Amino acid sequence: MRSDRLGETLLSKRLALPIFASDPLSSVAYATQEILLVLTLGGLAYLFLAPWVGLAVVVLLAVVVASYRQVVRAYPGGGGSYEVASRNLGPSSGLVVAAALLVDYVMTVAVSVAAGVDNVISAVPSLHPHRVALCAGLVVALMAMNLRGVRESGRTFAWPTYLFISGVLVMVALGLGRAVAGDAPVAESAGWQVRPEQAGLTGLALALLTLRAFASGCTALTGVEAISNGVPAFRPPKAENAARTMLAMGAVAITLFAGITTLALVADVRVAEHTCDLVGFPGDCTTDPQRTVIAQLAAAVFGGGSAGFFLILATTALILVLAANTAFNGFPMLGAILAQDRYLPRQLHTRGDRLAFSNGIIALALNAAALIWAFDGSVTRLIQLYILGVFTSFTLSQAGMVRHWNRALAAERDPVARRRLHGSRAINATGCALTGLVLAIVLATKFTHGAYLVVIAVPVLFALMRAVRRHYDRVGAELEPEPGALVLPARVHAVVLVSRVHRPTLQALAYARATRPATLTALTVGIDADEVALLRRQWDERDLDVPLTVLDSPYRDITEPVLAHVGRLRADGPRDLVVVYIPEYVVGRWWEQLLHNQSALRLKARLLFQRRVMVVSVPWQLESSHRRRPDDREPVAAGRPGSPPPIG
Amino acid sequence: MRSDRLGETLLSKRLALPIFASDPLSSVAYATQEILLVLTLGGLAYLFLAPWVGLAVVVLLAVVVASYRQVVRAYPGGGGSYEVASRNLGPSSGLVVAAALLVDYVMTVAVSVAAGVDNVISAVPSLHPHRVALCAGLVVALMAMNLRGVRESGRTFAWPTYLFISGVLVMVALGLGRAVAGDAPVAESAGWQVRPEQAGLTGLALALLTLRAFASGCTALTGVEAISNGVPAFRPPKAENAARTMLAMGAVAITLFAGITTLALVADVRVAEHTCDLVGFPGDCTTDPQRTVIAQLAAAVFGGGSAGFFLILATTALILVLAANTAFNGFPMLGAILAQDRYLPRQLHTRGDRLAFSNGIIALALNAAALIWAFDGSVTRLIQLYILGVFTSFTLSQAGMVRHWNRALAAERDPVARRRLHGSRAINATGCALTGLVLAIVLATKFTHGAYLVVIAVPVLFALMRAVRRHYDRVGAELEPEPGALVLPARVHAVVLVSRVHRPTLQALAYARATRPATLTALTVGIDADEVALLRRQWDERDLDVPLTVLDSPYRDITEPVLAHVGRLRADGPRDLVVVYIPEYVVGRWWEQLLHNQSALRLKARLLFQRRVMVVSVPWQLESSHRRRPDDREPVAAGRPGSPPPIG
Repeated sequence: MRSDRLGETLLSKRLALPIFASDPLSSVAYATQEILLVLTLGGLAYLFLAPWVGLAVVVLLAVVVASYRQVVRAYPGGGGSYEVASRNLGPSSGLVVAAALLVDYVMTVAVSVAAGVDNVISAVPSLHPHRVALCAGLVVALMAMNLRGVRESGRTFAWPTYLFISGVLVMVALGLGRAVAGDAPVAESAGWQVRPEQAGLTGLALALLTLRAFASGCTALTGVEAISNGVPAFRPPKAENAARTMLAMGAVAITLFAGITTLALVADVRVAEHTCDLVGFPGDCTTDPQRTVIAQLAAAVFGGGSAGFFLILATTALILVLAANTAFNGFPMLGAILAQDRYLPRQLHTRGDRLAFSNGIIALALNAAALIWAFDGSVTRLIQLYILGVFTSFTLSQAGMVRHWNRALAAERDPVARRRLHGSRAINATGCALTGLVLAIVLATKFTHGAYLVVIAVPVLFALMRAVRRHYDRVGAELEPEPGALVLPARVHAVVLVSRVHRPTLQALAYARATRPATLTALTVGIDADEVALLRRQWDERDLDVPLTVLDSPYRDITEPVLAHVGRLRADGPRDLVVVYIPEYVVGRWWEQLLHNQSALRLKARLLFQRRVMVVSVPWQLESSHRRRPDDREPVAAGRPGSPPPIG
Repeated sequence: MRSDRLGETLLSKRLALPIFASDPLSSVAYATQEILLVLTLGGLAYLFLAPWVGLAVVVLLAVVVASYRQVVRAYPGGGGSYEVASRNLGPSSGLVVAAALLVDYVMTVAVSVAAGVDNVISAVPSLHPHRVALCAGLVVALMAMNLRGVRESGRTFAWPTYLFISGVLVMVALGLGRAVAGDAPVAESAGWQVRPEQAGLTGLALALLTLRAFASGCTALTGVEAISNGVPAFRPPKAENAARTMLAMGAVAITLFAGITTLALVADVRVAEHTCDLVGFPGDCTTDPQRTVIAQLAAAVFGGGSAGFFLILATTALILVLAANTAFNGFPMLGAILAQDRYLPRQLHTRGDRLAFSNGIIALALNAAALIWAFDGSVTRLIQLYILGVFTSFTLSQAGMVRHWNRALAAERDPVARRRLHGSRAINATGCALTGLVLAIVLATKFTHGAYLVVIAVPVLFALMRAVRRHYDRVGAELEPEPGALVLPARVHAVVLVSRVHRPTLQALAYARATRPATLTALTVGIDADEVALLRRQWDERDLDVPLTVLDSPYRDITEPVLAHVGRLRADGPRDLVVVYIPEYVVGRWWEQLLHNQSALRLKARLLFQRRVMVVSVPWQLESSHRRRPDDREPVAAGRPGSPPPIG
């Protein structure tokens, strides 16, 4: 996409919602399930806590949405949590957020793909043995799609998202309606018992179990901040439209989550972390899979093999894959922003640079695939690593917003405006306190279940990015020029490396002479006496009028004698410049590269370490090089100014 | 070693014998065993053929030694079989020999190491389960030693070789002496029966078995040609000394082989290809190893745990490892000769070039280790692949010698000299006929046992090397210069790539201006409007007097706009030259390289494909680069002519 066309594709709210909401909405597909899973570790006895845990999640969701509506209004530039934290809390906090977000993008891909495959397997159980392969295949497919640069239009996102929303809403409405009418839907697992892993919990243990269930349910919040990164893509008034879309997204997410959770409780859905804890599970509990909560609900409401059942599962799987795909856009984009701030290698910044983006996409896919493989594609196990990063960035950005309002309050005198600012600050302070609390809960309840990996990964990333920044800062200071005009070198010594008298050599000599150096020498290293004699003879025959210097190489090495010769030339004068011309072959096939230029490349790498030395590659295009640049043959009709040869 | 010192280390015959003979002498350690193994496939009944097979091997050995004494005298340059075949039969025959020799070097390492380990295991049977690991470890150790460039002095070779020779001679003399005295030594396996795998052989089958035994026994001839490659290393008169050493080597080899074979028959040694065919074998025939023939003889003569027993086995293992080591010298040396003839990448030719030699050493070790692994470190199975290459080069070089004498005869009129030439030709013709016959026998009897791999590998190598040569020939023709003086370019357009105004940029501008081009432009690609504005402001502040051109990059790409701009400059005049100056950072740590220069490198690779374009690297040495070149800081007292900075 051309830079100057970017402005033409601003999003209406109707299209923005599905584009930004696939990630947060898709997470309701597994949040309820994870709450039930954790609670049933204590047996069916504690399922009575599920509505309260669900309610807590809903409240948290509402608070976070409200908080981020403030972010959208205050920072319409779209930097998101990273910008908010950097600007208000300092670059270190921003960097922590960035590290957490990078980890989170990887987790989004891993968890979303695993959950998507989970729903596919619920529809077609015979695919269960291929779970990891299916996940890996999906990740690779997403990677390939993004590497090829296939950009989805808003419409690609729109229909599965709206289909998912309406499908789930219809299912919930039908199911709850039947319950009100006295004919409540019954899940296939309603009659099963659950063998508690932690029986007879009391006091602290029960509280911990409840908190763990809550922490797992908080996965429903992942992706909520997506809109705050995308404000510039909205139609004006950007901030207001984004805030409204955020409100709509929050409302839909809360409705879907509350609906699915209520329906699951009404239909008596039973799930367990370990299938063998389910008494009454048909089939072999060591190999056969449980169905997802969504699948069980769809089966209970629409019937097991009905079109409704398959439609619900298909749209659920699809929206989960779309959620994974958003990470493939977000990860390299965050990389570009970090590169602009010099926390990552500079080349990632050039947005048009395919290669840099490709590296990001490949890194994301490889890490996600490795995690899926390490955790057997289990959503329940992967999710332990997920929300630590999310809530780290939530907490820090909300804290940043509190500082932001404090600063605004210090400058504001108008009482009405001050009251508004006080209100905003209260919202963000609540958000900060709540998300901080959740962060502590997640850390405490999930640390040993896998979250420790994130606790290691985030500081490592942080330290790496800080090291990169320090390097660039040091280099920047080193490169700061002194004032004054250009200081030209006193004399230029040109040295042309020669092995035989052939066309590339003659071309290099001609080009070197064209630069009118103070001295011009042809240099060769004498290894084989016969070859040197032949070279001298050909040199004299040609009457080249350039002195030929033959360097002695007692150890049959090329590099050191040339380096020593260049060193001597440099020592001639403290402001002299030595220019070394190296004829190089340009070939068209990769294996031809192995047959040429090897010693030249090594010599060159060494020469670059000397000060006041320039190395000139004088390319000679062998016939085969036209395989790669068929358009660059010497033009037949020379000199058509203004019509450059096509380059592609 | 310095080229001009090479002459000082010429070898006396006393030192040359062990240096060149470790390979041919070591092969007697397994030749007898392989003859017995094959014959006992038919049961003990056919052991009566063993003396005749041994005799045939001895005759062949004598003929080949005589033939190669001719080679040594006719080609004292030391090119060996490759040179003889190339010069007399044409380059294709030479290339066949070269391919066969390359394969053979790999086999020498694999077989010698496996046989060495076999003897170690005969001394310490508990090592048997680690056979492959021991072999691989030895190959890696040899590789490491040769990579580090540890060069053995003649003395290192001398004492194990002379110890091996004298040890075996003493053993044979003692054993045969006792037999004459009526107290013949009895091998531990003397009483065992052998279950024949091919019972009741008659006619053709028996002949085939005998020929197979003979073909296996011919392994005694491997390495005989070694001296003919090393003539230049002898003291003068080189050829005569080499011929005499060859005679001594032949005499010793024949004595050792005949002695071991006779003693093995006297002591009734029993070995079988499959241990379970040995009736009476103590221990588990599926897992326990047989002892080598040498080990059984040493035990019978000196006693099982005696010092003599261990000394014989230790020197046998040692000389086998030394034989493997000679291949590590010969393989890269042959590579250098082939590279000089442009059959292999040219950089292998530079003998002083560590890297190229290292590649050869690593390739040899990897291939040998792979073969050892594939054939479970079994000498018997590896040997099936061995002598095909040896006899290919024997046959072709002897045929070449016949042609050599024919040519000499055509020019010679003196009857005495002619008689001598006729004699020489007769020797080589006999050698050619016999080795050709053996080649046919080996091919026929061993093809299905593994030799087919060599029949595939040699033509593949041949084709590869021919392709390399064809490439170089084609390039050579393409590069042949037309007669006449240098054609200077009409105008030089200098373009300096600029991203920011810092010291590397200013340096590049100064250096570019020093070459006094017709036009000088600073070029930047506008991706970020703010950065461009900053650059323009700094440019104007500095009053640089060089026009700054900002290229539009609608797709945020750097490479294409620059390529297009250079293309336009080239189109200005058909004889104009464009010089592109790229400021580059030189860093001291590998990871720093990842942080810089990436887009410059890619741009450069693309620019080289355009004609009449030079690319200039203007290095800027960052502080960290001094980690790698601490001696290259700008000299404090500038300009001490004649005293270059030390370069290491």
